[in-house]
Amino acid sequence: MKRMEEMILRYGSVLPGGILKVGSFLNQQIDTCFLVEIGEEIARLFQHDRVTKILTIETSGIPMACAAGVKLGVPVVFAKKHQGSNVDGQVYSAEVHSFTHGNDYRAVVSADYLLPGDRVLLVDDFLASGNAFEGLLKLAALADAQVVGCAAAIEKGFQGGGDALRARGYKVESLAVIDAMTEKGIVFRP
Amino acid sequence: MKRMEEMILRYGSVLPGGILKVGSFLNQQIDTCFLVEIGEEIARLFQHDRVTKILTIETSGIPMACAAGVKLGVPVVFAKKHQGSNVDGQVYSAEVHSFTHGNDYRAVVSADYLLPGDRVLLVDDFLASGNAFEGLLKLAALADAQVVGCAAAIEKGFQGGGDALRARGYKVESLAVIDAMTEKGIVFRP
Repeated sequence: MKRMEEMILRYGSVLPGGILKVGSFLNQQIDTCFLVEIGEEIARLFQHDRVTKILTIETSGIPMACAAGVKLGVPVVFAKKHQGSNVDGQVYSAEVHSFTHGNDYRAVVSADYLLPGDRVLLVDDFLASGNAFEGLLKLAALADAQVVGCAAAIEKGFQGGGDALRARGYKVESLAVIDAMTEKGIVFRP
Repeated sequence: MKRMEEMILRYGSVLPGGILKVGSFLNQQIDTCFLVEIGEEIARLFQHDRVTKILTIETSGIPMACAAGVKLGVPVVFAKKHQGSNVDGQVYSAEVHSFTHGNDYRAVVSADYLLPGDRVLLVDDFLASGNAFEGLLKLAALADAQVVGCAAAIEKGFQGGGDALRARGYKVESLAVIDAMTEKGIVFRP
């Protein structure tokens, strides 16, 4: 998606430690016009995959998951990063390592909202080493739901998570794939 | 909003401890068709208030904040519940007490995304004792931004937070106001 690359180049910045900051339009602050375009693009990419549900994980994947859910006409479920007092009953959980925050957390989703027979599209803002998507894959497997693909706004191709998922046969669509990134510049995958 | 009351009665449930569970359509799992209606209703209620930005706090207010932002054509900013490694630079922060989780947390937002002159609409899924909205009011005040109102999907009227904000002159619009709630039934404010 050419426009995602343009937005990254225009409004993004690379922070020390390999963090790409896109807080002015994608997370923290959300450009809602652009958000609608993201939802349309994800819906277009997965329009023939008979998606019945979108699964994301809190927090920053939620806006684009909802935008895509609106366009595909399917519900969005988000996994929580720990079990709160308002997740009652049976839950599925998976351990996830966070690259951004350098810690581990538990992704938890109520068993009521992820069902056998669901055709699940996994959505998140970033796909880097793929840890969050791995956690979502585990949650879907625990529910006996089928994963039809993974959608990310920005893939850090140089961290390998996206290509590892593709090698295992998953349909992975990232709206921009970054193959190299320094504080001086960003190289997108053609 | 009659439809919010209908959705609560049809799909909601009251858990011990005064928790209203609406996870099947409003948070955890989001009914995206209904989400669009929520966004339209909030936009209608605040269409004459010259909103320039919507401010919410992670996590469960984000979908409806985005839906309203799309309809109003304004960006959405969400405060984080603690300072992560990808919030750099100057930030505003406020202490907030969580009724649901029974703890305190720090709401943090980057100073880049909340500006003097902004006309801010505060949005969250629940308005109970009003602690989260108080935190958002503090953040807006720290930024010298003007708060034009507060929008909630569900107000627990019996906890008084909404009426306290109204008494202080704020425009508060809740799509359903619950005046009494037990495991046996829910009474809405007429």
